[in-house]
Amino acid sequence: MPRKTNLDDQLLDAPPVAGNGLLDRRALLKLAAMGSVTGLAAGRARLAFADPVAAGQPEWLLAPGLPAEAYGRPSRFELERVKRYVWPLEANRGQTIPWLSFTPHDLLHGVHTPSGLHFEISHHGIPDIDPERHELLIHGMVERPLKFNLERLDRYPTVTHDYFVECAGNSGRLWNEEPVAETLALTHGFLSGSEWTGVPLAVLLDEAGIQPGAKWVIAEGADSGSLSRSVPMGKALDDSMIALYQNGERVRPGQGYPMRLLNPGFEGNTNVKWVRSLRVTDRPAMTRFETSRYTDLMPDGKALQFTLEMEVKSVITRPTNSMKLKEPGYYEIAGLAWTGAGRIRRVEVSADAGRTWGDALLQEPVSPKMTTRFRMPWRWDGGPATLQSRATDESGRVQPTRQALIAARGRPPGPGTYHFNGIHSWGVLPSGEIRHVYA
Amino acid sequence: MPRKTNLDDQLLDAPPVAGNGLLDRRALLKLAAMGSVTGLAAGRARLAFADPVAAGQPEWLLAPGLPAEAYGRPSRFELERVKRYVWPLEANRGQTIPWLSFTPHDLLHGVHTPSGLHFEISHHGIPDIDPERHELLIHGMVERPLKFNLERLDRYPTVTHDYFVECAGNSGRLWNEEPVAETLALTHGFLSGSEWTGVPLAVLLDEAGIQPGAKWVIAEGADSGSLSRSVPMGKALDDSMIALYQNGERVRPGQGYPMRLLNPGFEGNTNVKWVRSLRVTDRPAMTRFETSRYTDLMPDGKALQFTLEMEVKSVITRPTNSMKLKEPGYYEIAGLAWTGAGRIRRVEVSADAGRTWGDALLQEPVSPKMTTRFRMPWRWDGGPATLQSRATDESGRVQPTRQALIAARGRPPGPGTYHFNGIHSWGVLPSGEIRHVYA
Repeated sequence: MPRKTNLDDQLLDAPPVAGNGLLDRRALLKLAAMGSVTGLAAGRARLAFADPVAAGQPEWLLAPGLPAEAYGRPSRFELERVKRYVWPLEANRGQTIPWLSFTPHDLLHGVHTPSGLHFEISHHGIPDIDPERHELLIHGMVERPLKFNLERLDRYPTVTHDYFVECAGNSGRLWNEEPVAETLALTHGFLSGSEWTGVPLAVLLDEAGIQPGAKWVIAEGADSGSLSRSVPMGKALDDSMIALYQNGERVRPGQGYPMRLLNPGFEGNTNVKWVRSLRVTDRPAMTRFETSRYTDLMPDGKALQFTLEMEVKSVITRPTNSMKLKEPGYYEIAGLAWTGAGRIRRVEVSADAGRTWGDALLQEPVSPKMTTRFRMPWRWDGGPATLQSRATDESGRVQPTRQALIAARGRPPGPGTYHFNGIHSWGVLPSGEIRHVYA
Repeated sequence: MPRKTNLDDQLLDAPPVAGNGLLDRRALLKLAAMGSVTGLAAGRARLAFADPVAAGQPEWLLAPGLPAEAYGRPSRFELERVKRYVWPLEANRGQTIPWLSFTPHDLLHGVHTPSGLHFEISHHGIPDIDPERHELLIHGMVERPLKFNLERLDRYPTVTHDYFVECAGNSGRLWNEEPVAETLALTHGFLSGSEWTGVPLAVLLDEAGIQPGAKWVIAEGADSGSLSRSVPMGKALDDSMIALYQNGERVRPGQGYPMRLLNPGFEGNTNVKWVRSLRVTDRPAMTRFETSRYTDLMPDGKALQFTLEMEVKSVITRPTNSMKLKEPGYYEIAGLAWTGAGRIRRVEVSADAGRTWGDALLQEPVSPKMTTRFRMPWRWDGGPATLQSRATDESGRVQPTRQALIAARGRPPGPGTYHFNGIHSWGVLPSGEIRHVYA
C-alpha cells in the first residue's frame, strides 16, 4: 500500500476519538513531520478553507513578471480581440488587387488611431522600401528640379499636426438598400486619425521655384503600380506636407514609409504614399484614380471629378452592434466627428431616430481636420431606441440624413459610390442587442 | 560544346566583317529567334547600356508589395534602428530587480511617444494579466466599498487628455561629475507623452463616498511586488484618472494593462500600473517607494518627501550626439518641454552656452501637463557652438542651470538623486560631431 502523502487526507482520515467528528489528536503530530514527506500528492484538497489561487491571488501576483521589449506590443489578450479587419485576405497574395484593412473604432477610444490599427488601402501592395535608396523628385514646371533623400529632407523645417485620413469610399456600404450586419469597422473603418510630422510642401516647392502658369502637382508613389494623383497648387501651397513621422515615429510601411504626401482633409487616395515624384504641371494628369475611380456619378449621368475635400461627418462608436446593453441605466454614448473644412463646431445626438436632439460634449482641444471625440450621457429605460449623431462644422455645413443624401446624389448601383457622409443609426432593442438600421 | 544562350555574347562574339569592329549583320537575325532560346544564361551583361535595376528602378517597383497585417508594425528597417534602450537586459530575468527601458527621443519627432517606445520601469516585471480576472477595489474610509471589473468600469463617464509621464529619476545621470557619452535615451528617456482615456477618479471616489477626515488614497498595483504609492486626496479629486486606453487602444502591458492610475504631472512612480486597490486613508502609507526611494536628500541631511509635481524642464532632441552635422548651413533645432504645473509658456534656445537666448516656436496646441514640441531655426557657421534650451511654465517657474540646481540641492553621491531638471547642453565641434557637455 502506497504511503499516504496528502496531508489533508492524513487529517481527515484520522480515527474518530469521540462523537460528532472529534479526531485523534495524534494526526496533528504528523504535520510536524512535513519535512520528511517525500512527495506531496497533487490530489483534491479536502479541507478547502483556502480559496484556490484562481479565486484569490491571481498567478501574476505570485512571481516576477515579464521583461520590457525593445519595441513593445499590446497585451496578448488584446491582440486576439482587437485587430484590423483585413480584406480580402489570402485571395490577393501576389496580385495587384488592393489590400484593404479597416480600423475597428468600436474597440478603440480617444482621438488618435494606434498606428498598428490605422486603416490601409494599398492598391498594389505595400512596397518594402529601403529608406537609404528612396528619393523624392520635384520637377516639371519648376526653375530648379530637385531631388531629396531622407537625410536631405531631414534638414528642412518641420511641422506637427493632428489630421484624419479618410478614404472617399468610407461608408460606401451605407448606399446599400439594406443595413449591413457587420461591425463598425466595415462601415466606418476607412477613417483614422494621427499625429503627423513633416516638411511643409510649400517650402520644397518654393525652393524648386514654381514657374508661371503652374496649377497642379502630380504626385506619384513608389509602389509597383505607381499610384498617381493630381493635387491643386492652392492646396499644395496651403497645408500639404511631406510626412516623415506618424504618431512620433517614422511613418509606417502601410502609410507610406519612408515618406508620404499628406493633403489634410482631402480624400485619402490623394495622400500619395511612398511618394517619389512631384511633377508640377498646368493641368491635372487624369490618372486612373481620378477618372475610373474616385469620381462621383450623379443621377443625371454626369460625374463629379476632383471632389477632394471630405465632408462633415460623424458616427457613434459606443455603444455599437459589437456590444449588448446588459440592463437599463446609465451609459455613455461616444463617437467621432470630422470634416475636411476645418474644425467641428457642434455634434448633436438623438436617441429617438432624429425627432429630438441634444448637444454632445466635444473633447478639447478641437483640432482642424482631425477626428473630434464627442460624448453624451444616456439613461436607457430598457425600451427600443435609435441612436444617431449629427455633426456641424465651422463652415456651417451640417451632416445630412441618408435620405437627403440619396435624394441629392442618387443611390448605387450606378451613382454615388463615394463620399457617403449621411447620418448613421444604431437601433437598440429591448433585449439590449444593437443593430445597424436605417431610420 | 554547350549552346550559346546569352544574347549579349551572341552579338559581341559575332565575326568581324570589316575594320574597327564592324560585325556580321547575321548576328542580329539571331535576336529574332529569341523565342526558341530555351535557357537564358544569367551571365554578366556585356552590352551594359541599361543601368542595373539597383541603380534605376528599385526592386519594390517591379512586383506587387506586401499585404496589410491585422496589427501593423514599423518597417523592418526602423525596427533595426529605433528601439528602446532596455537595461539591464538578460541579467534580471526572473529577478525582482526593476526592468528599465528608455524612449529614444533623438530618433523620434512630434509630440506623442509611440506606445511601443514608451519608457517602462517595472520594479517587479510586467504581470501578464487576464483582463477578465482583474478587479479594482475602492475601500478604506469610504461609505460604500466598491469593486470594479473592466466591464463595469467601461460603463462610467470617460475623458481623453494628452499627458506626459516622467520618472523622478529621469536625467539622474546629469548629477554625475562628468557628462555622459551615451545618447539622449539614457539621460532623458524616462519621459514619454501619450493620449490617455479613462474614468476620472473623482467619479469613482464620489460613488464610494469619502468619509470625513480622509486625506490620502493608497494605490496598489497587481504586480508581484504590489507596488504602492500614496496620493493626496486633493490630487485624486482633481485630475487623476483610471486610464483604460493609451493612444487610442487599451493601455499596453508595460503601462498597466488593463488599467493604471494616472496622476497628471506627478512623478512617474505614483501612476500606479495594474492598479487593483485604492484604499482611502487619513495618512500616507509610507511605502518603500516613498521612503527608501523617490525622496530627495538635501545637503543638510534632511530629505524632501512627497515631491510629487514634476518640475519645468526641456531638452533639445535634434541635433544630438547620435548625429553629425555634415556641413555648415541651415539646421532646425527641435526639442521637448514639459512641466507638472500646467502649460509651457516659453522656451528659449541658446547656441552660445547661455550667453544669448532667442525664443523658440512652440507647436500648437500647447496642452497642460503634456510634452510641447519647440523649434528654432539655426544657421551653423562651422565653428564650435553649445546648444541649450530653457523652459518657462505658466506658473512662472524657469528651468535652472545645472550649477544653480546643484547649489540648491547638492550633488550625489549622497543628495539629489531624483528630480534633476537642469538645463542640458550639446557641444558642437567644428568637425560637426556633437557631445554632451556641461556648460
